[in-house]
Amino acid sequence: MPEDLSDLRYQIALANRLLTNEGVLDAFGHVSMRHPTDPGRYLLSRSRSPGVIVADDILEFTLDSEPVMPPTVQLYAERVIHGCIYQAREDVMAICHHHAPAVMPFCIAGVPIVPVFHVAAVLGETVPVWDQRDDFGDSNLLVVKPEEGRSLARALGPHSAVLMRRHGATAVGASVRELVFRSIAMCQNAEYQMRALALGSFGALTPGETKLAAAINLSPGPLSRAWDYWTARAEKARR
Amino acid sequence: MPEDLSDLRYQIALANRLLTNEGVLDAFGHVSMRHPTDPGRYLLSRSRSPGVIVADDILEFTLDSEPVMPPTVQLYAERVIHGCIYQAREDVMAICHHHAPAVMPFCIAGVPIVPVFHVAAVLGETVPVWDQRDDFGDSNLLVVKPEEGRSLARALGPHSAVLMRRHGATAVGASVRELVFRSIAMCQNAEYQMRALALGSFGALTPGETKLAAAINLSPGPLSRAWDYWTARAEKARR
Amino acid sequence: MPEDLSDLRYQIALANRLLTNEGVLDAFGHVSMRHPTDPGRYLLSRSRSPGVIVADDILEFTLDSEPVMPPTVQLYAERVIHGCIYQAREDVMAICHHHAPAVMPFCIAGVPIVPVFHVAAVLGETVPVWDQRDDFGDSNLLVVKPEEGRSLARALGPHSAVLMRRHGATAVGASVRELVFRSIAMCQNAEYQMRALALGSFGALTPGETKLAAAINLSPGPLSRAWDYWTARAEKARR
Amino acid sequence: MPEDLSDLRYQIALANRLLTNEGVLDAFGHVSMRHPTDPGRYLLSRSRSPGVIVADDILEFTLDSEPVMPPTVQLYAERVIHGCIYQAREDVMAICHHHAPAVMPFCIAGVPIVPVFHVAAVLGETVPVWDQRDDFGDSNLLVVKPEEGRSLARALGPHSAVLMRRHGATAVGASVRELVFRSIAMCQNAEYQMRALALGSFGALTPGETKLAAAINLSPGPLSRAWDYWTARAEKARR
Repeated sequence: MPEDLSDLRYQIALANRLLTNEGVLDAFGHVSMRHPTDPGRYLLSRSRSPGVIVADDILEFTLDSEPVMPPTVQLYAERVIHGCIYQAREDVMAICHHHAPAVMPFCIAGVPIVPVFHVAAVLGETVPVWDQRDDFGDSNLLVVKPEEGRSLARALGPHSAVLMRRHGATAVGASVRELVFRSIAMCQNAEYQMRALALGSFGALTPGETKLAAAINLSPGPLSRAWDYWTARAEKARR
Repeated sequence: MPEDLSDLRYQIALANRLLTNEGVLDAFGHVSMRHPTDPGRYLLSRSRSPGVIVADDILEFTLDSEPVMPPTVQLYAERVIHGCIYQAREDVMAICHHHAPAVMPFCIAGVPIVPVFHVAAVLGETVPVWDQRDDFGDSNLLVVKPEEGRSLARALGPHSAVLMRRHGATAVGASVRELVFRSIAMCQNAEYQMRALALGSFGALTPGETKLAAAINLSPGPLSRAWDYWTARAEKARR
Repeated sequence: MPEDLSDLRYQIALANRLLTNEGVLDAFGHVSMRHPTDPGRYLLSRSRSPGVIVADDILEFTLDSEPVMPPTVQLYAERVIHGCIYQAREDVMAICHHHAPAVMPFCIAGVPIVPVFHVAAVLGETVPVWDQRDDFGDSNLLVVKPEEGRSLARALGPHSAVLMRRHGATAVGASVRELVFRSIAMCQNAEYQMRALALGSFGALTPGETKLAAAINLSPGPLSRAWDYWTARAEKARR
Repeated sequence: MPEDLSDLRYQIALANRLLTNEGVLDAFGHVSMRHPTDPGRYLLSRSRSPGVIVADDILEFTLDSEPVMPPTVQLYAERVIHGCIYQAREDVMAICHHHAPAVMPFCIAGVPIVPVFHVAAVLGETVPVWDQRDDFGDSNLLVVKPEEGRSLARALGPHSAVLMRRHGATAVGASVRELVFRSIAMCQNAEYQMRALALGSFGALTPGETKLAAAINLSPGPLSRAWDYWTARAEKARR
């Protein structure tokens, strides 16, 4: 993992563009990374569509989601998603919030996503569903107030991702590469789970299979191989 | 909002190309804007597929949908959609008529679209369905006569969009950017509503959520962020 | 309609590429045109995937589907589709045989396509289904023998297209532009008909609507507007 | 069939890229070929995403899936899929293992794929389903141990492809071109089979039709025509 912040900023910008190119992010959504040497801070872009973010857009925030430097640009309204999860989960080093078309039907129907093929074992045994309405009644559905961020973090619990009813999803990872892998795998799994249901039924992975397959997919080999592939695709699409 | 007509013509042409690039428009469909200083007139392209429209194609029309200058080119047959809605709705500054693949199943099945995720709150509580057959019996399904345009405008009522049975949809906005945002959000919502139904059910936004989420999504920040992103995509696709 | 054969050859090659670019043709399928001055002949490419056909590939055939000049290249095995329909239908000037993904589910399920939106009125009231098995029992499902071609032409009857069970579809037109418009409209209609069914039901156009909407869509304005758009897309995709 | 190994290496790399471009392979999956003069060896890439493989990545392996030269690069973990099938099936000259989105719903639901249109007759009468869980209980679902490879080869039996429950599929061929044709046809068939089911029902090809249509589709004409088309598409996408 590179220690130099300018390289990290580039990695975060690349993750934003790469996830846009793979259909996870669109005009909205964002990717953050915990600061590599100061666990009380995180790195996140200024408010911009993720597909056009560059390294210079990446700013530094406290875990209360306040910018470290006085901002001269607009900031994402939903920064507390990142700050509150970094506060609640010491193991989390990267976070992606998105409204990927593949997962939206599950967010809307309120149906949990469960891993139905080996690659998606990286989701863990289930992706729970959080409904902002339960704690806060009518709202604009954005996660803006600290208590909203904390409620979401509680729903995430020890899981690797959480669906947000009528809104989208948030995934976490032990690194940017793991996060990217998990975010894309979640979209594939959602698509396959829905289509398998249309064929009649689906049988999820067992807890044992989930643990074993997650371990192998999150090892450096598969993570690098996939990252290199998605990077090559994003670079080609950019030309 | 720029006041210069040549810049506005460019914005309208861009909106046409941008909505084509996002899959809302195809060989057919059109986008208009009310004249910025003369509310009794509107701006609309000559008859051309929206994906290839340039600023010079944009002409001026009265609210009776007559061209202000004697035309030397072919005009859209369905101009009354624009004129009749501008007559009926003083608040409307931009209109898009389209046959987007995502909404067509709803137009055909006669099923209203309701907002099922926060971004699509910009649709309002429902998108009603108008059936030309109810008022006019067998027709070629185009909206060409003034009485057809007025019937459609009545069905639209105070809503932000209306489905046209076996034909397509028409959306309105307080600006071109709002219109573009709403048109794309309606397509996403239609896709998700159909897929959530396939998963079992969907729960629409409450009236309170719809109002609150619409307000935040139609504020300048999200509108600009999305417009810039879709513009960047359209420009890249053009190269 | 241009009379020069080299320009016609270019138009046929363009129709092949354009329909490939719009997802109607793929590695297989073909487009032919009746000879403009000799109704006893037709023009068709040598055996090649339609997406890579150029004007020089277009050859001349008798209505018995024999090449007029001794061929030095491989020919399509299914030429009798074209020859037999030109023999049976004096009004037909262009034919497309394809396996478009959008229509295949209907060919496989044996469900007729009916027009469910105004543009697809150009299909007429229904697209019937032909099953090669009915007349010929077990076969390789290709239409190669004259009796197979004649059986298909009978099933087409006075209609504008016919589905071929477990195989694909064949559409006809009074010109290449009409044929291209109908072929693309049929794919759109198939997709929408299937999705409307998933939403609950669909109501087809009435016979009166079909006649009126077909007339307007097949007039020169819409045909040119769509042709120009699809040509622009094919040219852009080629760069 | 070219005998020169450097040309064969290029063909294998091209098959990997071509199948990626057609949506069969993604970040994962691999294509191998039996050595043209030594049936006890096979050719397979080093561990890389198939879309970025070049001729120099192709290495030589024994049928025990050991590299012939001491490797300096990372190898695919699932090589035994290839070695064990080449051991069990003398007629097999090329193998593709993949997780194509089109077939995943069938792998997850455990539903066999049967040929529902003429091109997919190349699959044979059915594509059986293998469940690693049956023989090995909880696993990481990868096929890494020789006994896992042999179990899969037994499930494949005399068929031309096998679905792997909650994992993906493996197809075989008498040549690289046949393998590529079959792999793409299987994806198309899966998509159409699922959609025909949504329309009500599907009727598979009879055994007689399957045999006859497979023979014609696997003859040199169709194989070359399709190969040239997919190659042209992959080359264009690469630019």
